[in-house]
Amino acid sequence: MALLPAALERIIRELSKLPGVGEKTATRLAYHLLRTSRRDVELLSQALLCLRDEIKFCSVCLGLTDRDPCSLCDDERRDASVLCVVEQPPDVSAIERSGQFKGRYHVLHGRLSPLDGIGPDELRIGELLHRLADGAVREVVIATNLTVEGEATALYLAKLIKPLEIRVTRIAHGLPVGGDVEYADSSTLGRAMDGRREL
Amino acid sequence: MALLPAALERIIRELSKLPGVGEKTATRLAYHLLRTSRRDVELLSQALLCLRDEIKFCSVCLGLTDRDPCSLCDDERRDASVLCVVEQPPDVSAIERSGQFKGRYHVLHGRLSPLDGIGPDELRIGELLHRLADGAVREVVIATNLTVEGEATALYLAKLIKPLEIRVTRIAHGLPVGGDVEYADSSTLGRAMDGRREL
Repeated sequence: MALLPAALERIIRELSKLPGVGEKTATRLAYHLLRTSRRDVELLSQALLCLRDEIKFCSVCLGLTDRDPCSLCDDERRDASVLCVVEQPPDVSAIERSGQFKGRYHVLHGRLSPLDGIGPDELRIGELLHRLADGAVREVVIATNLTVEGEATALYLAKLIKPLEIRVTRIAHGLPVGGDVEYADSSTLGRAMDGRREL
Repeated sequence: MALLPAALERIIRELSKLPGVGEKTATRLAYHLLRTSRRDVELLSQALLCLRDEIKFCSVCLGLTDRDPCSLCDDERRDASVLCVVEQPPDVSAIERSGQFKGRYHVLHGRLSPLDGIGPDELRIGELLHRLADGAVREVVIATNLTVEGEATALYLAKLIKPLEIRVTRIAHGLPVGGDVEYADSSTLGRAMDGRREL
């Protein structure tokens, strides 16, 4: 005989799929949801569906957006001559929070990682080169993570882009080495953006 | 200008309402959900709604169930002469997992806590006395938490029930003192059930 009602087993199973959520945490969350107002549970349920329906990738920068092109690519006040290259979509909002960058973005959706079978073809490097082809971009700021793989990706991109006579810079080691762009605090990220250096 | 698309802000706001989930965890979960298959997000969304639609309180024991009376109250093989009284619905499944108890349950939905304004009238004690009225129950095992408030609730119930010439027992101090029934491991709970003593 099942120890828990089926609907309770079911929500615990689904919540356990989330990263960092084990069976005990899922059970605690499930009992919390049972004590929550029905309205709040509906809001959460709808927000989940809405997330997958409304969020897509911007056709220009490949970041997350609910309209295409995204509000960053579409903002005429931003400097189209400076392009910041990041690994993942969350890195864009992390850098935006620092308030130190007023150019455009390009999301690679990964970093070079030969051990995981991720080479240049798995990243959105073709789209990046395409954006650089018309000569409007004068500087590419590489803001991949300051990890071994992020650094390797930066060096690889520098070698590709320099021949196009575009300045290539790297965000400064203001971030702790080994750290993730996504989780850095705003002022550290701001200083890192300020202290970017020639590659 | 918003840094994140609205649907992303929305799911982060809803997830942040969960206990133990701050803004950073909610953001991490949201980006995880964006990388999850649409099917899995739908399953989670549906499981949330289903939880609130299907789970109700059993009219007999007041535990959580998807049918009334619940499968525990409805199971003829369980001993109707022994009644185990717990504070909250999760405590029922914790004791069931120990496999050491074959009687019926009664959920108080709280414990006496004068400082929080919770007196006997706020608990489901009336329903408990009603169930004891027909003389079929010969023993009440009190499995409230082994905290000051749980002990006070146990003593209060013992004083009410003993005059009815029903045996009143308390689960043993096999649990660590100050601990919660819900989170105890099965073998400790089993030993506690075995070593129950007269109040």
